[in-house]
Amino acid sequence: MKPYAIGVDIGGTSIKFGLFTSQGELLEKWSMDTRTETGGMHILPDVSKAILRKLEEQKILPAQVEGIGIGVPGPVDAQSNVFFCVNLGWKEKFSLKQRMNELLPDIPKVLAANDANTAALGELWKGGGQGYKSTVMLTLGTGVGGGVVMSGAIVAGAHGGAGEIGHITVNHRETAVCSCGKRGCLEQYASARGIVRLAKEMLSASEKPSALREMETFSAKDICDLARDGEEMAHEILLRCGRFLGRAMSFVACALDPDVFIIGGGMSRAGDILMEAIRLGYRKYAFQDSKDTPVTSARLWNDAGIYGCVKMVL
Amino acid sequence: MKPYAIGVDIGGTSIKFGLFTSQGELLEKWSMDTRTETGGMHILPDVSKAILRKLEEQKILPAQVEGIGIGVPGPVDAQSNVFFCVNLGWKEKFSLKQRMNELLPDIPKVLAANDANTAALGELWKGGGQGYKSTVMLTLGTGVGGGVVMSGAIVAGAHGGAGEIGHITVNHRETAVCSCGKRGCLEQYASARGIVRLAKEMLSASEKPSALREMETFSAKDICDLARDGEEMAHEILLRCGRFLGRAMSFVACALDPDVFIIGGGMSRAGDILMEAIRLGYRKYAFQDSKDTPVTSARLWNDAGIYGCVKMVL
Repeated sequence: MKPYAIGVDIGGTSIKFGLFTSQGELLEKWSMDTRTETGGMHILPDVSKAILRKLEEQKILPAQVEGIGIGVPGPVDAQSNVFFCVNLGWKEKFSLKQRMNELLPDIPKVLAANDANTAALGELWKGGGQGYKSTVMLTLGTGVGGGVVMSGAIVAGAHGGAGEIGHITVNHRETAVCSCGKRGCLEQYASARGIVRLAKEMLSASEKPSALREMETFSAKDICDLARDGEEMAHEILLRCGRFLGRAMSFVACALDPDVFIIGGGMSRAGDILMEAIRLGYRKYAFQDSKDTPVTSARLWNDAGIYGCVKMVL
Repeated sequence: MKPYAIGVDIGGTSIKFGLFTSQGELLEKWSMDTRTETGGMHILPDVSKAILRKLEEQKILPAQVEGIGIGVPGPVDAQSNVFFCVNLGWKEKFSLKQRMNELLPDIPKVLAANDANTAALGELWKGGGQGYKSTVMLTLGTGVGGGVVMSGAIVAGAHGGAGEIGHITVNHRETAVCSCGKRGCLEQYASARGIVRLAKEMLSASEKPSALREMETFSAKDICDLARDGEEMAHEILLRCGRFLGRAMSFVACALDPDVFIIGGGMSRAGDILMEAIRLGYRKYAFQDSKDTPVTSARLWNDAGIYGCVKMVL
C-alpha cells in the first residue's frame, strides 16, 4: 500500500480535509469554505486544487497517495454515484469517482459515501465504537442523520437511502408535517429544532414551572443545560426525546442487531443526562436479544468524517 | 471448487436436505422427521448419518463435497454459533460448525445461519429476489420471521438477532402482550394467529356483514379466501394487516434501503390481494428515497432454506 491517504468531508458551509498515513495516523487537517454558488460547480475543482497544494507543500507525490475518500451531505450509492446534494447545489446524479479522476488522474482510487455513513465508519474505527465491527450511528444536529456500518463496511442502500433513521415514523398521532412530507418522523422530536418544538408543546400542555417559560426563545442547549442543573420540566423533555430516539433505535435493532449504537452531533454534547434518557427509551422498546446493546457517545466529533473517509480507501 | 454441496434446513418437525452441484443445480432433495426429544441431542447425528447415506447411495465421496450449509430456527451469529433453539430442544450456546466437524470430519466447511436468513438468501439467489443483491424478507407463518441479506451476505447481528422484524413495535396502543413480552409487535397482527386475532377485534368493533361471523373458528386462509371472493370486511382486515406490515417495512427501509422486499410463508400464498395490501401500506409510510422499492412474492417456498444454505458455502 502507498504511504498516504486523504479524507475529504464536504459540508454545506465548509470542506474538511485530513492527510493521513496509510497506518491511519492523522498528519494534518485543514479546511476551506464551500462555494455552493452556480450549482456547486466549483466544489470539486476546489477540492482537487487544495489537495495538490497540500501535497506540494508536504513534498508528497500524487503517486504516493493510496486514495481519496469523500463524504457528501446527500445520498450516495455503493458505486460512488451521488444522486443530488441540495446543500451543495448539486441537482443531478453523477459519478463522483469519475469527476475526481478527471481532476486528479494521478490518484485513481476515489470512494464516496454519504457523510453520516462516513462519520459512523470513522467513529467505529477510531472513536466511540472502537473494537466493534458493526454500528448504527445517529447524529443529532440540524436534522437527525444516521449511518450504518455492518462487518466494517458502509451500507449505502439501493437508492443511497440507508441510514435515514431520522425519517422513521415514531409518532402516528402527529399532525405537523416533517420536512420530508411525512408526519411523526424522529427528526421532528430529536433534532436541535425538533426538541425545541417538543419542548414548546410539552410546556403548553403542562403547568410545571420551568425557566424555559421566561425565555423569549430557547435552544436545545438551554434545555440540556437546565436538565443538567436539575430542572424537572427540562428533564422530562429530554426523557420524552430519548423515548422517541429509543423507539426508532429499537426498530433498527430488530432488523440489524448492531454491536453498538453511537450517538453524535451537537446535541449529544449535552452528555450523560441525554445519553441516559436515550438508553432508558431504547431498553423500553428493544427486543430481548438486543436489550443490552451498548449506546455510546461519539468521540471524534467534527473529525469523524475525515477518519471515516480515509478508512474507506485503506 | 469441489463438485457438490449440501443444504440442510432444520425445522421443528422435519429436516429438509438438498444435494446440489457446485454450479447451484439441485440434484435431489429429501427430508426426515426432527427428533426433538432429550434436548434435541439426536438431531445433528441424524443429519450427519442421513448425509453419509445419501452420498454413499449417489457414489459421492465426502472429499468431493465443498461444504454443508445449515439453517436452524433460532439465533445464530456470524461465526456459526447457535445461541438456543426452543423448537429443537437446544438450550445452550454451542458451535454448530465444531459439532458437525466432529461428526463429519471429511467435510470441514460448515456454515450455519438462522433459517429466516437462509430463506432470504435462497430467494435472493434463485427465487423472488433474483437479480438483486440486497433484500429484507418477511416470512408470514406461525410467527413473522425476517431475513436480511446485504451485498449478497447474510446479516446475522451481534446476538444473532438481526431480522427480528416480527418484533418491531407497530402499535403503541396495544394492550395484549406478545409472546416476546412486549406489546404491539408486528407478529401480533401479521402472523397466521395474529391476523385471526386482528379479524376478531375488527369484527366486534364493526357491524359490517361477514361470512366470518358465521364460522365457529376461522383461519388466515379463510380471511384471504373471502377477501379474494370480494367480501368487503375480509378485505378491510387484509388492508389493516398490510398497513402494519408496511409500517414495519418502512422502518427497515429507512435503516437499510434494500433493493427488494420479499414476502414468503404460508400466508403469502393468499396471493395478489395480500401483496397489494402490503404495497399500499408500505408506500403510505416509506421515506421518499425508497418509496418505489419493489415488494415481491417468494417463489421457492419450502425449498428456499436449502437453496440459501447451499449458497452460503458456495
